[in-house]
Amino acid sequence: MNVLIVYAHPEPTSLNGSLRAFAVQRLQDAGHRVQVSDLYAMQWKAPLDAGDALARRPGDAPFHPSLDSQFAFANGLQSPDIAAEQEKLRWADAVILQFPLWWFSMPAILKGWVERVYACGFAYGVGEHSDARWGDRYGEGNLAGKRAMLVVTTGGWASHYSARGINGPMADILFPIHHGILYYPGFDVVPPFVVFRAGKMGAARFAATTEALGQRLDDLFTAAPLPFRPQNGGAYEIPALTLRADIAPEQTGYAAHLASAAPGA
Amino acid sequence: MNVLIVYAHPEPTSLNGSLRAFAVQRLQDAGHRVQVSDLYAMQWKAPLDAGDALARRPGDAPFHPSLDSQFAFANGLQSPDIAAEQEKLRWADAVILQFPLWWFSMPAILKGWVERVYACGFAYGVGEHSDARWGDRYGEGNLAGKRAMLVVTTGGWASHYSARGINGPMADILFPIHHGILYYPGFDVVPPFVVFRAGKMGAARFAATTEALGQRLDDLFTAAPLPFRPQNGGAYEIPALTLRADIAPEQTGYAAHLASAAPGA
Repeated sequence: MNVLIVYAHPEPTSLNGSLRAFAVQRLQDAGHRVQVSDLYAMQWKAPLDAGDALARRPGDAPFHPSLDSQFAFANGLQSPDIAAEQEKLRWADAVILQFPLWWFSMPAILKGWVERVYACGFAYGVGEHSDARWGDRYGEGNLAGKRAMLVVTTGGWASHYSARGINGPMADILFPIHHGILYYPGFDVVPPFVVFRAGKMGAARFAATTEALGQRLDDLFTAAPLPFRPQNGGAYEIPALTLRADIAPEQTGYAAHLASAAPGA
Repeated sequence: MNVLIVYAHPEPTSLNGSLRAFAVQRLQDAGHRVQVSDLYAMQWKAPLDAGDALARRPGDAPFHPSLDSQFAFANGLQSPDIAAEQEKLRWADAVILQFPLWWFSMPAILKGWVERVYACGFAYGVGEHSDARWGDRYGEGNLAGKRAMLVVTTGGWASHYSARGINGPMADILFPIHHGILYYPGFDVVPPFVVFRAGKMGAARFAATTEALGQRLDDLFTAAPLPFRPQNGGAYEIPALTLRADIAPEQTGYAAHLASAAPGA
């Protein structure tokens, strides 16, 4: 299978760099083809702006993030760096986003990859709206049929990210990425691989960490995805997009959007 | 009082641009001094990297995001753009982060402002660790005594961000910013001002929106902050940093870190 790793760490000799090298080797040894988008090495342009299109919409309309993205995508006028990443996504059967958790989210350079590569018409603004459908998203879309997984490192302890930990539960911190960035354009999202206390990584822990990561990579195409509810599958009222009153009536918040308790989520 | 607006939208004639202009005028009319960090206009460098310091740590150690930040901050060797933003934060009595919600978080250019301006020793890595304290953070730190507020626009409907809305509750989406980015270095965080359906903004709705925003700006220094629990105030076990068993024993997740139901949160 084809695996794309989108990788965001500025230092190749870091723990993240070592885990990336391990992952590439493990996947290749299993017979997969691997491409890596090393965003720092590529000097990826992070900010979304009018320079992302080779030409603007006709007329003198001011720059509009989604309308200009839609026009450029539809007319082959995207900046070549954006089009190249979209082609890698089309090629991939699975995508791994690997990054250190900085301020409880992905690094800016990776957020900018999402904002610019996720063009209108490619990753959002797809499909028709009707009484029964609100576009092709949350389980449908151009990236449906592909898998995605996060590989995340953090200096904090697992307890700091537990159900009553001060940082909030890791599953909640990652929900906007899992559900809002990956499930949204159609990916099946498998549970994340999270390394805590990344600053305290001796040889024995590194060996155990790569052992565990290796197993997760071996299972990338067979692991059960997080059971998010498809938007257009009947669980949500349209257009309010609230969960139907008879579905998980006792639940609110992120957990309501999982059809059952997810392993490792 | 002194108010810093950190603003992240690429198009000055956008709704965000209009709301920013309104906010500056309203605050100035009330007698406040206002500075705006217009990140797109400043061509703010988003990615955190080794170029953020004028000199590296002694020796040949590889780049390390927090150790190099700490060294540069302590020795006056930060990139001038970073030092200038820190000086604005010192000057400010209140900080407003204004941005469109893109992929359920702040734009990359603003995330990169946080990552680079929040130096080690300035916004994290502050204070001592002991049996009773885990650094000066979550309610303590160099930015304690200042206020912060988010002004956020989104194309989605309020119902999509409600307790059972498909995107997840807005309060949960903003929690990592409110609690993890603003409360962490010491800010008192007042409830956010959120504009839904930002793409459907006629003259009447714009007038009502600025009316409401104006009221919130008038109340910026008097509104009750979100009642997050201070880390070192006795509510958390140290070093596990889990909420003490007798505090809100029925609660898990983000809500457990609020001492009571917050108005508008």
